[in-house]
Amino acid sequence: MRTVYLNGDYIEESEAKVSIFDRGFLFADAIYEVTAVVDGKLIDFPGHMERLTRSLGEINLEVPFDQASLLEIHRQVVARNNLREGLIYLQISRGSTGDRDFNFPLEPVAPTLVLFTQEKALIENPVAERGQKVILVEDWRWLRRDIKTVQLLYPAMAKSLARDKGADDAWMVENGQITEGCSNNAYIVTADGTLVTRALSNSILAGITRQTVLQCAAELQVKVEERAFSAEEIRQAREAFSTSASGFVNPVVQVDGFAVGDGKPGPVARRLREIYIKNSLATAIDALTPQPA
Amino acid sequence: MRTVYLNGDYIEESEAKVSIFDRGFLFADAIYEVTAVVDGKLIDFPGHMERLTRSLGEINLEVPFDQASLLEIHRQVVARNNLREGLIYLQISRGSTGDRDFNFPLEPVAPTLVLFTQEKALIENPVAERGQKVILVEDWRWLRRDIKTVQLLYPAMAKSLARDKGADDAWMVENGQITEGCSNNAYIVTADGTLVTRALSNSILAGITRQTVLQCAAELQVKVEERAFSAEEIRQAREAFSTSASGFVNPVVQVDGFAVGDGKPGPVARRLREIYIKNSLATAIDALTPQPA
Repeated sequence: MRTVYLNGDYIEESEAKVSIFDRGFLFADAIYEVTAVVDGKLIDFPGHMERLTRSLGEINLEVPFDQASLLEIHRQVVARNNLREGLIYLQISRGSTGDRDFNFPLEPVAPTLVLFTQEKALIENPVAERGQKVILVEDWRWLRRDIKTVQLLYPAMAKSLARDKGADDAWMVENGQITEGCSNNAYIVTADGTLVTRALSNSILAGITRQTVLQCAAELQVKVEERAFSAEEIRQAREAFSTSASGFVNPVVQVDGFAVGDGKPGPVARRLREIYIKNSLATAIDALTPQPA
Repeated sequence: MRTVYLNGDYIEESEAKVSIFDRGFLFADAIYEVTAVVDGKLIDFPGHMERLTRSLGEINLEVPFDQASLLEIHRQVVARNNLREGLIYLQISRGSTGDRDFNFPLEPVAPTLVLFTQEKALIENPVAERGQKVILVEDWRWLRRDIKTVQLLYPAMAKSLARDKGADDAWMVENGQITEGCSNNAYIVTADGTLVTRALSNSILAGITRQTVLQCAAELQVKVEERAFSAEEIRQAREAFSTSASGFVNPVVQVDGFAVGDGKPGPVARRLREIYIKNSLATAIDALTPQPA
């Protein structure tokens, strides 16, 4: 039985409930973050908290939690669940005014803050070993994908469709160009060895893992182009992969039934995965060792 | 204190809570409907239930509730709250598998069914008397607006922006054409007296009130064109109005600061409102009188 955090309390997961009037439930009026844990350490924690602050600001959600308090709660859920490897999910919703109203409340309302852990093999990930199969779907999501909201029904539909077709994920296509995966950023390595990934804009989420992986690419002296790429370019690519907090760097070996490159995880993805894990662990925040008071 | 319905129980509103793992809370993986109640009677109930069934089907959510059971629950929440005039909100989410996963669960999971009432003056609505002020915003919502999901953050943002600007609502604009309001369908009456409203497609919700109002227009021998219209056409229009289950027919007297027509609620909107209320009440389902067992 997991211990989760809900509005100030550490409680059993089966007890963790929110009001049916919570705006997260009624309006998807909520922001989230997912932080990876390896060896009991928080990966890229400051980056996630910075993005959280930005997302909240974009939807005018003022939140009375500072980063130090949030770090302490992250530490607590890791320690209380003895989480060695997996994910910490954090969600902040606009809370409830006790009635349903599209308008954001004018008077301050206590937001709902939830954190829970999920165990997951992140380092020894079988999908990373064999490489992902991906399908392409039209990107029908809203146009502020830079804000990490819980409006995730379309990615859920697309991912389920991918599964039904024997694939692992769906990459979204808008005006003939790839935006991103269902819960990750998308990349190709061209025939001449250039790493291509879409530039940041309202069309995609600014991945925290993406940011670190691009630093790793620079370290490996891989040439990077931040621009949109098409389905046709994937077919001509040497490699493809995705990045996310839960998948790190995940090779893509098949897109819509076509093999990417030689159909096996490629060397650039593999090296980026290794160096990403090494660099991230070096700067990760230990959450299992008790802190000095 | 309201009595609400949650998964088989009629309980006090303060007790009505759902798991933090509910997919409605984590993924906006939920469908809703709002039914108006006047004189303790359900307005357009079969239409709402038909649309509910369609929305659920579009997101592959199988639901073990038939229309008769849902009608009985609607009756019960009306009767238990002695609701004379107002709204019944119904939401069905995909429930919870106890872990967060984008994929729809492969094994059947119990959906979450919630109903609650809200008192609201629908007939003597001051906004209908004075007419609404509306602002125009770009339509940044997802592209399956025909499905009535709880992915409502953008309409909530737009409606709040409208309020901040001293307006009542926002109408959405896509490629220069109006799609719909934040929670209603949009109409103009042109200089030659033609009623224009956008044709049904994935771009807008198929309003239940819209359907009935178009029948009322036919009854009043008003010429109807179902097609997109632009902001410029609103400026040249004689009238504008919106329709919704909670607003019935609501005149719009100002758009982005410009008066529509003479800046007062127009005669077409007013007559449609009257006849809509009259016709709807004639076919409404009494929910306050006890039913024979």
